[in-house]
Formats: sequence, structure tokens, C-alpha cells
Amino acid sequence: MTHSWSSSSGGKDVHLDWSPGGGRGALAAAIRTAIRDSRWSPGDVVPSTRALAQDLGIARGTVTRVYADLVAEGYLRTSQGAPTRVATAGDRPEAAARRGSQATVPEPRWNLMPGRPSLSMFPAAEWLAAMRRVLQRLPAEVFGYQRPGGVRALHESLARYLARSRGVLADPDRIVVCAGFTQCTALLSQVLLARGEHEIAFEDPSLPQFRRIAEAAGLRLTGVPVDGQGLRVSALDSPAVVVTAAHQYPLGVPLAPSRRTELTRWASRTGGLVVEDDYDGEFRFDHQQVGALQALAPERVVYAGTASKTLAPGLRLAWLVLPRALVPEVHAAVAASGAQPPALDQLVLAELLDSGAYDRHVRRCRAEYRVRRERLLAALPVAPQGLAAGLQLLVRVPDEAAALAACRRASIGLEGLGGHWVSRMDRWGGLVIGYAAPQKHAFAGALEALTGALRDVLP
Amino acid sequence: MTHSWSSSSGGKDVHLDWSPGGGRGALAAAIRTAIRDSRWSPGDVVPSTRALAQDLGIARGTVTRVYADLVAEGYLRTSQGAPTRVATAGDRPEAAARRGSQATVPEPRWNLMPGRPSLSMFPAAEWLAAMRRVLQRLPAEVFGYQRPGGVRALHESLARYLARSRGVLADPDRIVVCAGFTQCTALLSQVLLARGEHEIAFEDPSLPQFRRIAEAAGLRLTGVPVDGQGLRVSALDSPAVVVTAAHQYPLGVPLAPSRRTELTRWASRTGGLVVEDDYDGEFRFDHQQVGALQALAPERVVYAGTASKTLAPGLRLAWLVLPRALVPEVHAAVAASGAQPPALDQLVLAELLDSGAYDRHVRRCRAEYRVRRERLLAALPVAPQGLAAGLQLLVRVPDEAAALAACRRASIGLEGLGGHWVSRMDRWGGLVIGYAAPQKHAFAGALEALTGALRDVLP
Repeated sequence: MTHSWSSSSGGKDVHLDWSPGGGRGALAAAIRTAIRDSRWSPGDVVPSTRALAQDLGIARGTVTRVYADLVAEGYLRTSQGAPTRVATAGDRPEAAARRGSQATVPEPRWNLMPGRPSLSMFPAAEWLAAMRRVLQRLPAEVFGYQRPGGVRALHESLARYLARSRGVLADPDRIVVCAGFTQCTALLSQVLLARGEHEIAFEDPSLPQFRRIAEAAGLRLTGVPVDGQGLRVSALDSPAVVVTAAHQYPLGVPLAPSRRTELTRWASRTGGLVVEDDYDGEFRFDHQQVGALQALAPERVVYAGTASKTLAPGLRLAWLVLPRALVPEVHAAVAASGAQPPALDQLVLAELLDSGAYDRHVRRCRAEYRVRRERLLAALPVAPQGLAAGLQLLVRVPDEAAALAACRRASIGLEGLGGHWVSRMDRWGGLVIGYAAPQKHAFAGALEALTGALRDVLP
Repeated sequence: MTHSWSSSSGGKDVHLDWSPGGGRGALAAAIRTAIRDSRWSPGDVVPSTRALAQDLGIARGTVTRVYADLVAEGYLRTSQGAPTRVATAGDRPEAAARRGSQATVPEPRWNLMPGRPSLSMFPAAEWLAAMRRVLQRLPAEVFGYQRPGGVRALHESLARYLARSRGVLADPDRIVVCAGFTQCTALLSQVLLARGEHEIAFEDPSLPQFRRIAEAAGLRLTGVPVDGQGLRVSALDSPAVVVTAAHQYPLGVPLAPSRRTELTRWASRTGGLVVEDDYDGEFRFDHQQVGALQALAPERVVYAGTASKTLAPGLRLAWLVLPRALVPEVHAAVAASGAQPPALDQLVLAELLDSGAYDRHVRRCRAEYRVRRERLLAALPVAPQGLAAGLQLLVRVPDEAAALAACRRASIGLEGLGGHWVSRMDRWGGLVIGYAAPQKHAFAGALEALTGALRDVLP
């Protein structure tokens, strides 16, 4: 319903999109809109409260209160004995009501994205039950502000978990909980810069996301080649290096024992920092897991773990176990970032770790992903690269572009190896196939779609 | 149980803290510990698998597998035809098993900390129910990686909520969800620096936490005095300013209508950026809330809201509504920070906003806090500063140090005004008393403790 009247100042017809049922709030909104849309201009006299009330058929008191609100908000101004005028000096909002214009890429039908755990494996009941127990305690951490580094109870639970599951030398005082390994990377980059270092090495190939974060922080990137033994430590010539020792991403090889020793020697000799990105250390299918590199040199190696592969990336929970000397520097970087993961989620994770629910969940996932990996291997006419481990598989292809195009046509989401290379010359083509991502019921379909799509592009 | 034998290389007695019931894992752990503690040194020959198995009374196969694991982990090394040796070149872990040594300040018995909502008001049942509904949908956002800025569904829910409750011109495309206003401050500081600006103004007095974050980012701070009308806009001479327009923190005054206009004019004239920290805009007790300043100049004002006062600071959820030009710059800063709030929590908040549960909760809190404020005022022999609004009250005291000491003696947690000043010369003493923080049953006791403590220090 539109009301209109002539403003006594400029003789304009001013339209108010206003329906009488909406009350005071609706009238105020209609007047704000009229002002923003320049139907009224700064300095214009607005109708008297009496005139507007009469025109709209509402109580004068209502209009008086709306005007008072709009004066308080700075839309209108009054002065003793003079009529009320439009006061705003603000900018015109440009298309403020525009909706839904963000470009959205349609989701592929078959989700074989690497590094994603399965939606249908998420332990929703356990997560909710643990959260209910935490909330019953009304923990003070949830209602105050945290210290940098995270919630103490989680530090203690993680220290126990990491010692028993990954052989990490984990002192709770040295643990910092972050919003994913993405934030871990940003924080460690800040620490390096604050120490006057300007370069960090990543494995070549490796996940480009983390490289981009280090680069955005202002570090120079170098790539260190990976061969069948893992990182070629002899090629290392940077003050710091990020290494996926247990299961190289995306090649899938473990860092060989001799290279582990060589790497910690390098760190001791040069004072270099090793960041061990243990993103999927829980998921080795063939054998008892290899313990963390960190335990060999806890004053040189930063251990980094995450809930992104075990629970869900959307929880944004990861943790660092730091050399003692780095703790105050990382705390300072956390404080400067202003960003900490929610205390509530941290306490829920602690509860899951302490109750054994986390271990049980990891075992269930390990069993499921092992079977999926075998089914994927049986369906593909190629040998995979790397260990029987993790949430994804790298398959070598003669023509990566053609293979990716075939997958796109079949509406399959996965990744090409291409974007993972840093700089090395002997690039080759591959597909990084995440077999963990599909829901259980969708795995068979995804597999069939994949084998169909790759039929003509695999040798 | 301790086993010992002589190593064939150096004739050392090597002790293994190992109990036969513990199996393979326990034996591996005992050997790792022996190596870390330098009972075995690099290059030492370890016992043959046969000798150790015999000594420990266990199967030789067990020892063989443990050795293989330790070789894979880099603790031991083997070479064809030679005995197995200790290989580690790692640093000695310094007190890695040290526990619980972080200094912990005892919690005061009576929590009257400002800016904290009540533990006992947290809508736990609603939060859990909303989370259950979200998890039933298995939303893809939770299991993938988010775009910078947060989850689309929350942008849309927030746009509707902010328009209806705070009069914000909120385009979902311009909303960025952050880990609290702390991260908002860090991100906006990065954006200013990237634009070549080197200074930001804060109200004097204001909360020191946010000033510290801006300073840590590398910005120079200036303070702009606040009087009974709010920020003295005429004293503003910086490229950006953070303003608590609805309810100045900690003085409690609103920004007067003329100053609102003056501030948006300043922004238009100078190209300056206004950050409206609307930290408790929902909690005004006397009157319909004054709408957000942002709506007067949406291309000049960044609106910032938070769930820290309405739900809990430990959720680390806040949001920015940005001028269009700033959106890509803030997205870039988010990407570089690597830190985003969890998608799951964002979807839960969207669910609460859409179902009306959030509004109902805010109304319940408003009613409760209004009553508490009145009881506090009735109990104190002084007039408060500022509006009937918010979660805290500022009380002027002749001797702040004496008043704070009296509160400490009575085990009352609250804040002095002192730390809030930036630089102005006419400082005066005050206590910032948070009446929202106590649980319901504890409020009367806290009030009694406070009036007792302040009896001798108030005029």
C-alpha cells in the first residue's frame, strides 16, 4: 500500500511504501527508504506529525515517536520552533537490497574431492551428546575470553591422544589450537617474518592452498622435489620447510627412515624449522602407523594435526605442538590475528578424545576408507602411487587435461595434479581422487561414473 | 617393571621401562624413551632381536616388528649384514612430559566482568536442537572448505535480522563472518595497511583489547575524546575510526544525532572509514533501539555485530557489513589469515535467527539484564554514567586503585576504567561493572559482595 502527499517544502510528491498493519517500525522503515532513495533530500521539510498522522489515518503519537527515533538515528533533525527536516548527509546505498548475485558454481554430482571425509561418517550423535555434556557444566571458558592457544582441557586431552596415537612428545603447554592448518600456516609464517626470515620451502608437489597463505603473509616460496623416498632433504636450502612425512600429499609416499634422520640432522645443523603436516596420520591401512617425526627432534619440529580429515573440515580445528622457544612467538601471532576457534567446540573435541569416542570414530573411518580404496583400485586399470593410506589416491594419467575434461563432463568433482607443482621441470599428469568424500550410498555410483569417464583417457 | 641388559657396543647397561603385558606398543615406547634419554646414543648397536626376545621372554617376531617400526620412524637404522644401530639425530626433548605448569590465576568468586553475558542464560537446548537439525541435512559446507566470508545461509539470515533489528542496510554479499570482533579488527587493520594507511583512531576511553590488535598489525593509534554527546568528531584526524555509536564503551553514552550526521559528513568529505562496533545494540532498556549509523552511509561505514554479548564470547562469532569497495579487500585478508569460523556453528546461528529463537533469547536476556541493572543501581549510592542499556555500568569513583583493591579483597572480578584511556589528560576513576555475567542464583550474592566492598570507597 502506497501513501503519498506533497511535502510542504519543495512541493514534491513523496511516496511511502507503508502498510498500516506494520506499526511504528514499518513507518520508520518507509521514511528511511524515502530518504535513502532521495525522494526526500537533505534540508527538505517533512510533514508535521499532525499532517502525516491525518494523512495515514494513524495516531499522532505514533508519528511523533517515529520522528523521535529518526532524529535519534540521524535521518531527521529538529530545532526549537522550526519544522522537522531531513538531515542525512550519508552516501546513497548502492543496490543495498541486491540479493543472491554471488556466482555459484554448480556442485558436481559425484564428489570425489580429495582431503574430504565422508559426510555420512560424521559422528553427529556423539558430537551432540558431547556438546550437551559440556553445556551442562556451563564451563567458564565458553562465557569469557580465551587465552591465546586455546582451552586448557583440550591441550591435555590432545597431549594424551597424540602421545598414544602418533608418538608425539606432546607437552600441553606447547599446544596451540588453531582454526585449521590454514591458520597454523598463517601463524607460523608471521613467526618466521618476525624472526627476520623471508623464505619457506614446500614439497614439490604439495597442496597449493597453504603455499598461497605463506605467500600472502609475505614469504618467498621455494619447492623441494619429492621422490620415491619423500622430500629430497639434500635439496633443502631454506630456513623452514613444511613436510607431509607420514604420507606425502599428493604423491602418497612416506618419508623414508634415512630421510627422517637426514631431515632432523639438517634442522639441528642449520637451526632450520620443520613443520610436520600430519594431516592424515591416523589413516594408514597396511600396518601400524609410523610415529610422528616430531618425536625425533621436538625442539626443531612443529607437529601439526587436524580434525579436518577425521571429523570435518568445516569444524576448522587443528593443533600445533611447538618447540618450547616458539610458544611465546606463536601466542603473540594468535593474539595479533584476533582469531581463535570457539571454546565450546574445543571442549566438545576434548570430551570426544577423553571418552574414546574419537578413537572409535577414527577406527570406523579407517575400516570404511580401506575398503573404498580397495574397491577403487579394483575398478581402475592402473597402479596407484604411494602408500595404502589416507583419504585419496593419485593416479598417473598420460593427458591430465583430457582426463579432467572427461570427469567434468561426467559431473565428477576431483583434482588434477597440475596445480600442486611448485616449479620442477619434470612435471607429469595425474588425478587426485578422494574416495572418502562420497556418502556411503553414493560411493558405488561415483566409482561407476569415474571408471566410465576414464575409460578412454587411461592407457 | 624394568629390564636391563648390556648393549654389545658400548658395554652400557640399558634400562627399559617396560611391562610384558603392554605388548608391541609398550616395547616400542620403552626403546624410544631409552634413546631420547640418551641411555642409547646415536651409533650404538642395539641387541639382536634374538637376544632381546630371550632377555625379555617374548616372541622374537614381536621384537622384529618393533625394530621394523622404529626403523621406519627413524629411531634405528639397519644395513645389509650389519647390526641394527641407534640412528636418531634428534634434539633432546626438554621436559616434554612436564604437565600443568601454566600459571593459573584463581577465578574470583563473584564474576562481575563487563561484556560477558550470563552463563545460565545461554540457550543450550535451542543451540543443540538447531545443531541437530543442521546435522540432519548433512550440509556440504561443513564437509568442504568455505569461501572467504563465511557461509551463504548465514549471510542471508543475518541480512534479514540486521535489517529488522538494527536498521542495517545489509546486502548478504557484503557480509563477512569472523571469529569475533577481535578478528574483525585484525582484518580491517590489514586492509588499511594494504591501502597505505598507517593510523586508526579509537574512542578515548575504549576497550584496550581491540587497540592492541590494531597496534600489533602495525597501525599507529590515536585517541579521540568522548564527551556527553559521544565521540568528539571535530577532533578526528585519522583515516579510520572505530566508534561504539549506540552505547559508548565504557562511558555508556549514545552518539548524539548531530554527531552521527557530523561523523558521516566527515567520512564523505575525507574519504575516511568509520567502523561501527555495535557490540550490544540489542540491549537498550528504555526505548526502541536507535538504528545503526551504518544505514546513513553504507559506503563509508563498516557495521560490526557480534554473538559475544547475546550468546557467548566463547562462540567467537561476529560479522561485518562492508562498503562494497571493501568486500574484495576483506576477503583477501580473510584468505591470508587462514582463519574462518566453523561452518557448523555458522549454520546453527542461521537456524536460530530464522526460527525466531535468537530474537526470543535476546528478549529474555533484555528483560533479565534490565532488572539486574535496576537492582544494581538501587544497591549503589551513586548515579551511573550513560544510558539504560547494555551488559555493564560505569560508576565514577574518587580513588580507582582503592576501589579495585577493595573488590579484589572481596574476590569480585570487574574492571577499572584506567586501562581504557588512550591518552587524554583529564582521566578520572571508575569501575566497569558487568551485571550480566553472574548466573541467576549468584547475582544477589555478587551484589551484596559489591556493595560491601564499595561501602568505604564510594563518596
